[in-house]
Amino acid sequence: MAEVTELLGRVATATLSAQLHRRGYRDTSIEGVTTNVPGARLVGVARTLRLVPYRPDLFERHGGGYNAQKRAFDSLRPGDVLVIDARGERRAGTLGDVLAARAAYLGAAGIVTDGCVRDATAVAAVGIPTFSAAPHPALIGRRHVPWAVDETIACGGAAVQPGDLIVGDDDGVLVIPPHLAEEVARAALAQELEERFISEMVTRGEQIDGLYPMNPAWRERYDAWRRELSDLEEL
Amino acid sequence: MAEVTELLGRVATATLSAQLHRRGYRDTSIEGVTTNVPGARLVGVARTLRLVPYRPDLFERHGGGYNAQKRAFDSLRPGDVLVIDARGERRAGTLGDVLAARAAYLGAAGIVTDGCVRDATAVAAVGIPTFSAAPHPALIGRRHVPWAVDETIACGGAAVQPGDLIVGDDDGVLVIPPHLAEEVARAALAQELEERFISEMVTRGEQIDGLYPMNPAWRERYDAWRRELSDLEEL
Amino acid sequence: MAEVTELLGRVATATLSAQLHRRGYRDTSIEGVTTNVPGARLVGVARTLRLVPYRPDLFERHGGGYNAQKRAFDSLRPGDVLVIDARGERRAGTLGDVLAARAAYLGAAGIVTDGCVRDATAVAAVGIPTFSAAPHPALIGRRHVPWAVDETIACGGAAVQPGDLIVGDDDGVLVIPPHLAEEVARAALAQELEERFISEMVTRGEQIDGLYPMNPAWRERYDAWRRELSDLEEL
Amino acid sequence: MAEVTELLGRVATATLSAQLHRRGYRDTSIEGVTTNVPGARLVGVARTLRLVPYRPDLFERHGGGYNAQKRAFDSLRPGDVLVIDARGERRAGTLGDVLAARAAYLGAAGIVTDGCVRDATAVAAVGIPTFSAAPHPALIGRRHVPWAVDETIACGGAAVQPGDLIVGDDDGVLVIPPHLAEEVARAALAQELEERFISEMVTRGEQIDGLYPMNPAWRERYDAWRRELSDLEEL
Amino acid sequence: MAEVTELLGRVATATLSAQLHRRGYRDTSIEGVTTNVPGARLVGVARTLRLVPYRPDLFERHGGGYNAQKRAFDSLRPGDVLVIDARGERRAGTLGDVLAARAAYLGAAGIVTDGCVRDATAVAAVGIPTFSAAPHPALIGRRHVPWAVDETIACGGAAVQPGDLIVGDDDGVLVIPPHLAEEVARAALAQELEERFISEMVTRGEQIDGLYPMNPAWRERYDAWRRELSDLEEL
Amino acid sequence: MAEVTELLGRVATATLSAQLHRRGYRDTSIEGVTTNVPGARLVGVARTLRLVPYRPDLFERHGGGYNAQKRAFDSLRPGDVLVIDARGERRAGTLGDVLAARAAYLGAAGIVTDGCVRDATAVAAVGIPTFSAAPHPALIGRRHVPWAVDETIACGGAAVQPGDLIVGDDDGVLVIPPHLAEEVARAALAQELEERFISEMVTRGEQIDGLYPMNPAWRERYDAWRRELSDLEEL
Repeated sequence: MAEVTELLGRVATATLSAQLHRRGYRDTSIEGVTTNVPGARLVGVARTLRLVPYRPDLFERHGGGYNAQKRAFDSLRPGDVLVIDARGERRAGTLGDVLAARAAYLGAAGIVTDGCVRDATAVAAVGIPTFSAAPHPALIGRRHVPWAVDETIACGGAAVQPGDLIVGDDDGVLVIPPHLAEEVARAALAQELEERFISEMVTRGEQIDGLYPMNPAWRERYDAWRRELSDLEEL
Repeated sequence: MAEVTELLGRVATATLSAQLHRRGYRDTSIEGVTTNVPGARLVGVARTLRLVPYRPDLFERHGGGYNAQKRAFDSLRPGDVLVIDARGERRAGTLGDVLAARAAYLGAAGIVTDGCVRDATAVAAVGIPTFSAAPHPALIGRRHVPWAVDETIACGGAAVQPGDLIVGDDDGVLVIPPHLAEEVARAALAQELEERFISEMVTRGEQIDGLYPMNPAWRERYDAWRRELSDLEEL
Repeated sequence: MAEVTELLGRVATATLSAQLHRRGYRDTSIEGVTTNVPGARLVGVARTLRLVPYRPDLFERHGGGYNAQKRAFDSLRPGDVLVIDARGERRAGTLGDVLAARAAYLGAAGIVTDGCVRDATAVAAVGIPTFSAAPHPALIGRRHVPWAVDETIACGGAAVQPGDLIVGDDDGVLVIPPHLAEEVARAALAQELEERFISEMVTRGEQIDGLYPMNPAWRERYDAWRRELSDLEEL
Repeated sequence: MAEVTELLGRVATATLSAQLHRRGYRDTSIEGVTTNVPGARLVGVARTLRLVPYRPDLFERHGGGYNAQKRAFDSLRPGDVLVIDARGERRAGTLGDVLAARAAYLGAAGIVTDGCVRDATAVAAVGIPTFSAAPHPALIGRRHVPWAVDETIACGGAAVQPGDLIVGDDDGVLVIPPHLAEEVARAALAQELEERFISEMVTRGEQIDGLYPMNPAWRERYDAWRRELSDLEEL
Repeated sequence: MAEVTELLGRVATATLSAQLHRRGYRDTSIEGVTTNVPGARLVGVARTLRLVPYRPDLFERHGGGYNAQKRAFDSLRPGDVLVIDARGERRAGTLGDVLAARAAYLGAAGIVTDGCVRDATAVAAVGIPTFSAAPHPALIGRRHVPWAVDETIACGGAAVQPGDLIVGDDDGVLVIPPHLAEEVARAALAQELEERFISEMVTRGEQIDGLYPMNPAWRERYDAWRRELSDLEEL
Repeated sequence: MAEVTELLGRVATATLSAQLHRRGYRDTSIEGVTTNVPGARLVGVARTLRLVPYRPDLFERHGGGYNAQKRAFDSLRPGDVLVIDARGERRAGTLGDVLAARAAYLGAAGIVTDGCVRDATAVAAVGIPTFSAAPHPALIGRRHVPWAVDETIACGGAAVQPGDLIVGDDDGVLVIPPHLAEEVARAALAQELEERFISEMVTRGEQIDGLYPMNPAWRERYDAWRRELSDLEEL
């Protein structure tokens, strides 16, 4: 797993999304979440927390004390990404700086919520990559009852299971089923090398026609360029 | 339970909502669903089905054959209301006429989904009260994977547990925790009697001031009216 | 005023909207409201009620007893249309059958709210034309505090002042400033006569080109048709 | 084509949607439009009209007189369905009763717009099946400039080309590419026969498990039932 | 008042929101507004401006010259926060740099609008904290008529009265009724001290269970830590 | 044209929007797009690309290889701004860094899309001003088929024609018809000079009343100030 996450960490979500798309995975992006730290990169293994809508009786029994939200954070392991199903609710927080600090201490790789983050400035200061719908000052109890840990959930319109690979950058966040992760990562690396070549050609003034996608002639030049490159670099 | 549902069946959701509100239950309406048969009344005991977003690998393993959706319908008992968590998704159906017919055969009291209904005309013909976000021709597999039966779910912004009381009419659908159901039903019946009196007074031309809510003078007249009435009617 | 409302009652909102548009009034429709009784026609003089968002201290002082909402209904006069500014809030009612019955008793011409109606079936039974965003079972206090009567308000994206003319049908609801009402009504009647002629021609198979809008040749035929008609009918 | 439309007219959009889905056509429903006459069935061949946002200079040159909207209606042929790209704009009409009457006179099969209909009551009286986002009194010029006829357009999130088959019922509206139409129609007829059998079994009390979808045992019983049926009926 | 605003200025909106929530104030956040200067802190006393939708006759009489918007800005006093009710309209500005400069000159503490800001870059340069829905180049007259000063208004879903305390940071903006301000501020300071302790423990590796919220054992350690701290610091 | 773009480049969109508004152009802003580089200024001449919704058959014929999207980018000339009609779709990219680099190489002035940008970080690094609805990792093919170059399109609710002037800054993006461009630019420069004077007066403590808008007395002082200024500066 460590090697796969290392590979995934070297490619953009845009490239991974293209590779998933080719394999029929068209709806594996978590929509509508943004990072609290521009330029942040997120890679890790999904853990999940499911919230349900606020209701007095359920909150009384499940909302306070050592609830599912707090159990989820205490249970994080190095490399985990906690993904929170908040039904896209933009009128309440789902975590704050204390829990973010706990996740960071435990070596978690990041946090993704389709709800909001409280005390967003303090959470950003903790330094753990956190993707959310927006900041919001309200307690989780304004709209939610923390419910279940490590179920299959919905987050930002994507299904997420514990064990899925989660990758995020400024473009957004992707969910990658584990059985596809390595294949997709390697294919993405190859694609990025091609795009690096194409970008170089474009900046030299080559036109898109024939180059992007590459026709046989360009493909040949690319192969030569690639051989050259591999003499110079580790690929 | 039978007695409670009988009581609940005699009051409007507007009145029940007021009684729940007084007890701190402000967010127990399932938002954005409407009945397929104007005038329909729905009363029963919640059973639940949770859907998660479509994903090829999950759908392959859980979407086809005798999936959670079909198991849920086969498991319905007389008086049950199947409540489906479809994340408010308006671009796919969550049931069609075959499953509605199965629910009707088993004596279920109704169906509520915050997603859509396929073959809405045929479903209406089945005659079981069905509340949904809209009709839509697409298969459940366009956006969903049927996932779990009888979990606590979110539907239309409300938390729903198996065993909750579900009541619906043209105003919408309410979720009533079982421990409150009888108390709320009886209080609602009393409130409706008051409102029946107030309506009679209003149609006679009495002004709202002092009457609605009732001041002591009106309260006295109400008590007299009520005693009279109880001689004439069963209450 | 009575004559103006009588004139307005004889034309469709679609025609009135066209006449208002020509006079630079492009945003005088109350968006997103529908009638509770298909085919209902609404014509009357605006009275207004402004609600503000729920807050415990404000509700305690202004929400209960003989509040602004109830004072507004008690103050209605024959021909009034009560227009309610509910900020388009779809998660709470703004009136129920008791207040609708009071409005009907006082001879009000109708009710328009960009919020919801409680006990929609009972309100429809009262028979007073009521346009709203949707039905909803919740009390006004779930989201609102009744605030002020007869201020200039916003309703469904339109500004409304007491004294404006309100006209509604299945297409929606329009707000007509009083100084334009008669002029717009008469121009709309003339336009409808033209469109009646055009429709007759179209149903006889005439093509749109030249007819709609009318070129001089058609205009001549129209004038003849109109003269004929005026011998037969009262215009 | 006549035969294909006849076949398509015998199946529900829900069934056609399923057949399109199996062939990889997951996004060919026109979202968010409803019929003005419950129970209406729409089948025909697409013609298109594209509107662009209102702008004074463009409207002056292209909005008045015999504009693209009117040319489109005059050009309709028997069996055509005019599909209007109004960008889902809900604050202006895109046609009224005069143009609907013209379409009806010319034998058009129906009208679909992701914008609104003016004078909705009069349009319904014309009797031509019309699917729209909502009724609205405003002129097309409030938000639109009629632009182009018979281009490939977007309507309710689906791409539509002249010549596509358009099918609509209470579930919504589908766009079917011509090369798939007959295959999809025949497969849908076969599917509906199966579902008719399954429904009969369900109403007799058979459980879903094994029946829907059919296992080999049920498949055998189905084939027998079908043979019987074909002796009795024309299929 | 000065002391209260000083206290409020020392706590995060997340903490204040929690204290308001405990006192039954769950809906006092102004939703959907963000600061034009990340990290900005806003604290002051509410003044209000209510806008109504654009209409030619109303704009002619109330939109130009020394209108309500300009009177509101000229009337600001040191420490005031001008809160503008723009109905969440995202297609027009509600103020620009000239008025922002006037507010700054008069010593106002900030501006909050649920509409947009024109010339956002210039407004940010003025340096007065400004929270809005978004920047937008259009004049207020595109959608609004400036209407009334210092009424009770709705802003971002919250009710706001002149005299309320307004506090904002990166999490959003809160409205605090004056009678609660000091109590809530002091309770928030106490809560933040606890959370400072809890955060220190978490960064040392303590688990959430038992610590957050604190059990008696932790509470004891906290009291000791606090006594120590008070010897070192001013609290 | 070069001179006009130079003039437009010296004024804020807020000022240009005001001048367009006075001339009846109230809906020429491209709504809901933001720049990827705060502070970026965009000025150029519109070229257009229209996308239609994804459909397998259309994508197979028009989506791959040297499609309309790529032809559009290859055809850009110095000073062009490519405006993309993506129907406001937020779930797919419409361009990435390779095409942005091509546009930059060809001297294009910028890119505007009401859809999303892939690889937003790399696109920002290219340095060409790009305004979009949001970043998104998905390929254009998730939701679109590249369709047509240099048609009249809709973008963010505005009509755009090749040859229109496009101006953008932090407030948003405006579309200016060519016949109005110079007149609007010069009027905007004059307005900005007035506002510069007004701002100076405001920062000196002058009140808004009488100054903004200027009464005759202030107008006189302004003329004097302006004469002075013109001795010092080039205007």
